Formats: sequence, structure tokens, C-alpha cells
Amino acid sequence: MDNRYFYDRRTHRAFSDREVTDKMLEDLLEAAAHAPTTGNMQLYSVIVTREAEARKALAATHFSQPASVNAPVLLTFCADFNRFTAWCRQSAAAPGYDNLQGFTTAMLDAVIFAQQFNTVAEMNGLGCCYLGTTTYNAPDIARLLELPQLVVPVVTLAVGYPAGEVEDCGRLPVKCLIHRERYHEATPEEIVVIYAEKEARDDSRRFVEENGKENLAQVFTDVRYTRQMMESFSAVWRGFIESQGFKL
Amino acid sequence: MDNRYFYDRRTHRAFSDREVTDKMLEDLLEAAAHAPTTGNMQLYSVIVTREAEARKALAATHFSQPASVNAPVLLTFCADFNRFTAWCRQSAAAPGYDNLQGFTTAMLDAVIFAQQFNTVAEMNGLGCCYLGTTTYNAPDIARLLELPQLVVPVVTLAVGYPAGEVEDCGRLPVKCLIHRERYHEATPEEIVVIYAEKEARDDSRRFVEENGKENLAQVFTDVRYTRQMMESFSAVWRGFIESQGFKL
Repeated sequence: MDNRYFYDRRTHRAFSDREVTDKMLEDLLEAAAHAPTTGNMQLYSVIVTREAEARKALAATHFSQPASVNAPVLLTFCADFNRFTAWCRQSAAAPGYDNLQGFTTAMLDAVIFAQQFNTVAEMNGLGCCYLGTTTYNAPDIARLLELPQLVVPVVTLAVGYPAGEVEDCGRLPVKCLIHRERYHEATPEEIVVIYAEKEARDDSRRFVEENGKENLAQVFTDVRYTRQMMESFSAVWRGFIESQGFKL
Repeated sequence: MDNRYFYDRRTHRAFSDREVTDKMLEDLLEAAAHAPTTGNMQLYSVIVTREAEARKALAATHFSQPASVNAPVLLTFCADFNRFTAWCRQSAAAPGYDNLQGFTTAMLDAVIFAQQFNTVAEMNGLGCCYLGTTTYNAPDIARLLELPQLVVPVVTLAVGYPAGEVEDCGRLPVKCLIHRERYHEATPEEIVVIYAEKEARDDSRRFVEENGKENLAQVFTDVRYTRQMMESFSAVWRGFIESQGFKL
């Protein structure tokens, strides 16, 4: 087995005009739906957004970040206990999935499905970009996509044929991610080593300078993912999940 | 691109004696770590359990289901904001990730990483089985693996070389998973059609008979995933996530 794809894959945020057909999307989603799923329940759905006005409105819920605006197709992957619950109800079976475990199970299913789609799509020449903003503005996304009870959007993929090449953005040394038998909490000295290469990158140094910060960690905590933002979006996300019928 | 792998992949619960080396595991995990990750933060860790006694103890937290007992390697994938938070703290940066968005982000990262590992491992001849029980008995798992604050196990993969072939367990018709532009809530008639093939399978009929139920949905609601069980494990899971430092 040649594993080059796995090392060479990149996230794409710019796309060419080449059409992604409905047939291709359906074939790739069908392939992805053979990914593992809890108890073979397939607790997920995907909403395909293609129409220009709808894409624009959906992109706005993702702060109109470049990938969301540029992509010809947006796929919103949802944790979905709606369909399964409907099946139970009309089978005189009493469903009990409107709780944290139900939500967690469906979320795991949806993300596994989304990642399998990401892989099979990239292997077939498409470029993808996860929009991590899905959980921030879930209420607006749900309104646009008319999501019913027990359906919660968890990740969105911007999809299209890539325009051009993308640079490698690097990864942490793999050894720091792997713990043998027991978790090893990194010492301060080890933390320095783990993040050294990341901090030394040209793009990292540029981020630090452009944002007037002392170091890269401060770019994350003070600019990209601040406590105020994380806490404010936590309140929205919690309220939304419960309003969709999952008690946390 | 030949997409046969994606359709032909199967979950394996029985494994041969052939050794999975540390080198192979590390290579596959390194390949998987190039999967997408939020803001390139890599908010995950994996704990490798190989020692016989440790495997037995860990399998017990998964109700000693066959895959957990049979596999030579168990990989526990964790949402991990511990490493990133340590880096922030020693960089004079104030981390704000001890909340629901922090937990959700790290969980998404961990599952994407786990699924990418599942794919690259299967493509290299290994067999895998997700243990969906990870979120049920997370407190016991965390104790065995000595997981510190801001580290939460989300999925476990049992891994080894497969022993023998596995039958296709079928999937729902792909069209019911795909919604064009807006979510379409299935009508009662559509629900019947969506689940017809699943209910008609020999193994489904056997489950119904063996459990003395009227239909397959009741096997799920009354035997496999009951309300009582989902609610009781929801309380454990909620308490555990908060005890690890993520306020829900």
C-alpha cells in the first residue's frame, strides 16, 4: 500500500470552475456511508447547498470565510436521530435518544461519515475544507436548512475542484500524540520541544508580527479563539442543542 | 480512482496472531495525523494499550465485547486540550477552552483523527472495530489510562490483522441520507421504504426472534439501546466531562 495520499493531502480553500456533478456527489456520499456507524444505525444526514443565493446565505453563517464563499458546493453534516426516532415510533418501539448519549452517538456517526467523505472526495481529485464555524452559528444554519427536531449540524465541508497547489502547514511531532499504556503529561521542557518547529515557521512568525503579539500561543488565545468567543458560542451551542430536543 | 475499498471495507471483531508492530502503528498514526484539524491545533491524543493485563482491564470497561478482548491492540482516542493549554500557559497566553465549544472542538478533532487512522489502517491490511462503549464508561477508562485534566476519551479502536472474512451488514438507501438545499423530513410511507431492506435481512429477523420482539426497531429500543441505559450513561458522561475540566 502506498500511503502517500495521507501525507500529501491538503486543505483547499480556492476552487476552479469545474463542475461537481450531482451524480459524483451521490456516488462519493454512498461510498462514505460504508464507514463505521454505531450499531449500523447511520445517525446522520447531509444537506447539499448548491443554489447561489442559498450558498451566499449559508456562507454568511460561516463569517463568509474564503472557502465558504468560493466553493461550488457546501455540505452540512448533521447528527440525526430524527429519522431513526420516526422509525421507532411507527414500529411501536419507544425511542430514548433525546439525551447527551444520544447526541454524542449521532455526532460521532456524523463526523466519521464526514471524514470518510473528505477522504474519498480528495482521493477522487476534489478539494475540501472543514468549516469549524458550524457549531458557532448552528441556530442560523438550522433555520436556513430547515432542520427539524433531533437534527444538529456538526461540521460543514466546502467542496470543489481545487484551484492550484497548497503549501504544507506542518504537524506536531507524532510522538507527542502517542501515549504508551498510560497518558504522559508533557513536562514544560517537552512542551517547548513539541511546539518549537511550529513556532519557527515563517507563517507563524508572520501571524505573530501582524497581530502585534509576543508569540504564537497568544495569537490563538487573544485573536483566533478567545475565551470570550468560546464562552459566548458555548452558550449559543448549548441552548441550540437543547432546543433541537437533546437534553444535555 | 478505484473506490472499491470504500464499499468493500468491513468492521472486524476477530483477529489473527500476526503481530502489529510499534513501528507500523506509529507510521499509520503519523499518516492519520495529516487529517484535517481545527486551526491546525491537533487537539487529540491516542493511548496505545498492548500489555495483556492492561488490555483485559480496559476490555472490561467495554463490557468485554468480543473485539475488545480479541484485539492485540486497543487505541483510545481522546479529545485533548491539555497539551495546547500547557503550551498557552507557559507562553504567557490565557487559554479559554474549558467550556462546551472547547470540548466539542477537541472531540471533532479526535474523531476525524480516529477515522483517518481507521481508513489508513484498513488500507494497509489491518482490521478495526470501533468500541462505542467509550463514552459509557469514560470514568473507568480515564482511571486506567491516567488521563489528566482536559483529556476525554471519545472513541476506541480495536486493531489487529483480521481473522477471516466478514459479511456485508448493509446500509440504508443513500438517497434518504442526502437532502437537497433543505432538510426533507421523511413521511411515514417513506420511513417504511427506507427501513424495508434492513428489516428484511436474515440477521435482522433472527435478532427479532431471538429477543422475542415484534420488530427490529424494538430490538434497538428495548434491548440494545434502551432509554434507561441512555439516560443513566448520559448522567455519567456529563459528570465525567465536567470533572475533566470542561464546563458543559
